[in-house]
Amino acid sequence: MTDLNTIGEIGLIERIRQATAAPTHAETVLGIGDDAAVFDWGDDYGLLSTDMLIEGIHFDLTYVPLKHLGYKAVTFGVSDIAAMNGLPLQLTVSIGLSSRFPVEAVDELYEGIRAACAAYNVDLVGGDTTASRSGLIISVSVLGKVPKDLITYRNTAQPNDVVCVTGDLGAAYLGLQLLEREKQVFLADPNMQPNLAEERTYLVQRQLRPDARTDIVHELRDLGVRPTAMIDISDGLASELLHLCHQSGTGAVIFDENLPIDDQTHLAASEFNISPITAALNGGEDYELLFTVRPQEFEKLANNARITAVGYLTANPAQIVLSTKAGQQTPIRAQGWSGMEE
Amino acid sequence: MTDLNTIGEIGLIERIRQATAAPTHAETVLGIGDDAAVFDWGDDYGLLSTDMLIEGIHFDLTYVPLKHLGYKAVTFGVSDIAAMNGLPLQLTVSIGLSSRFPVEAVDELYEGIRAACAAYNVDLVGGDTTASRSGLIISVSVLGKVPKDLITYRNTAQPNDVVCVTGDLGAAYLGLQLLEREKQVFLADPNMQPNLAEERTYLVQRQLRPDARTDIVHELRDLGVRPTAMIDISDGLASELLHLCHQSGTGAVIFDENLPIDDQTHLAASEFNISPITAALNGGEDYELLFTVRPQEFEKLANNARITAVGYLTANPAQIVLSTKAGQQTPIRAQGWSGMEE
Repeated sequence: MTDLNTIGEIGLIERIRQATAAPTHAETVLGIGDDAAVFDWGDDYGLLSTDMLIEGIHFDLTYVPLKHLGYKAVTFGVSDIAAMNGLPLQLTVSIGLSSRFPVEAVDELYEGIRAACAAYNVDLVGGDTTASRSGLIISVSVLGKVPKDLITYRNTAQPNDVVCVTGDLGAAYLGLQLLEREKQVFLADPNMQPNLAEERTYLVQRQLRPDARTDIVHELRDLGVRPTAMIDISDGLASELLHLCHQSGTGAVIFDENLPIDDQTHLAASEFNISPITAALNGGEDYELLFTVRPQEFEKLANNARITAVGYLTANPAQIVLSTKAGQQTPIRAQGWSGMEE
Repeated sequence: MTDLNTIGEIGLIERIRQATAAPTHAETVLGIGDDAAVFDWGDDYGLLSTDMLIEGIHFDLTYVPLKHLGYKAVTFGVSDIAAMNGLPLQLTVSIGLSSRFPVEAVDELYEGIRAACAAYNVDLVGGDTTASRSGLIISVSVLGKVPKDLITYRNTAQPNDVVCVTGDLGAAYLGLQLLEREKQVFLADPNMQPNLAEERTYLVQRQLRPDARTDIVHELRDLGVRPTAMIDISDGLASELLHLCHQSGTGAVIFDENLPIDDQTHLAASEFNISPITAALNGGEDYELLFTVRPQEFEKLANNARITAVGYLTANPAQIVLSTKAGQQTPIRAQGWSGMEE
């Protein structure tokens, strides 16, 4: 018997993918292997993505309000559709609930789900509700579409492409550190009031109620820019850059000074003795997008405050590095959650 | 605070449905309220259904082989598509796994999933894998399609329609009783070998590895019969007949002697002191379909061994009754699992 930890989630998905039969329906364009499955719907490609969130693994209800959790669950799924350069149409939400949840808790959760549906213009069309033995489980499936000539995969980036990221990185991770610290304070003395100063609200909001970047999908269309490749980086910039490079057969040089990091993230990183670069590379949960464009296309994006060029792709798949101002290069690794603290 | 049990699953779904905004996309034909959501895909309607299965709630791994569980999870979703008179195209499977599961267990689960995909001609196109704190969680979403002129809803049945069911009923419930009894014997003495005689295999197979009735969808098309309404009865014939009647505004008379019950079901029911009629009405998990046809259409189905006429619809919504040979009528209620034993 082989322990799951020896192959990891990526290894498990690869094992499932390899054992999966080739599609039999002509409509199935792409199965396992990108942010969403792809279907031929005539003029458009249809997209389907699904995610599962489990209490105690993905969220802690001692500090996550159910309304925000509902919003975040939808964000989770919509972000996968955005990463294919698509826009969402419909979604289903299934929930497993233990008996400790009253009806009002379900109302609160769905208030957030409905708010997200309105924000992303997606129709809630179904789901399943069931009892659970331990806590809350949420499964979200999102259907979307993208015009055929605009779809973006992970494996189609090319050497010399400019590597871009949306928004800023690392804030959600520092928001989590703040919330975890407040939880410990509260557990030690339940009469203590949380001490989340005004200047921290951005970090906490990025952790609790992140937005998927459907705005960027609209903007790219308006600007007439089609990325050569795109991927959701909610699992962290480093690991997703590695996926994109490995699947495209390219290397990458990322400049640490270019990584977009908010001032609040810098401040909190210093307080927690965490490198802001490490938080930006490996923190994850920012629900931003990583995409690549041909160098000649980049000028159309150059003055956009929501998009930052962080490096470029190379023809050498063995070279995926972080470069400092002084020119020192270190390999980028998918660190994940262990080894984050310095 | 209101306990979830005071409103039940049906009440909860209705509460969510009422609070859900009207769809904004023209493609969304139907959201919450039938076996699957319905989308306008041009010549066809698209269908999307999602289900969640949780260890300890929906299955007991002490006697459910993982391969059969994988098969059954796909059956669960495909049955919802069949109930719309549709055929499945693609599905996603998300799993939450606690650390007690080795890699080989996942292989076994997916072996069953792949066998079901082959049996139903559906492409496995994605999913999510995650850690779980307690046991196995499976979420299945299935996309399907149906020609627009063939779709069957729950709320379009008419008085005088013939009520039909596919296959036979109650076998899966008796199979569960057999497995639960063997489990108790095993728990009392782990050296005891299971004693499931040959003649019981049908009941156990109906519980462990049920098939969705995509064959009936093909058959109805071949015969040129479009049901006036159709619903999946894996939650039990009684409760689903009530849904169909309430949503269609009809009553129904069901003849107890017409209910299709296998000889093995009769034998086991007698042994467990359970009424076979009760098992057929309320046992559930048979993954059969209930449908209604116009009386003049029924003759096309009359000689089909896989389809049984069990009654007819009336214009009186207050009259949903079981009728004995002697003409005695008793109201049909959605008993669910409590009160099954006599």
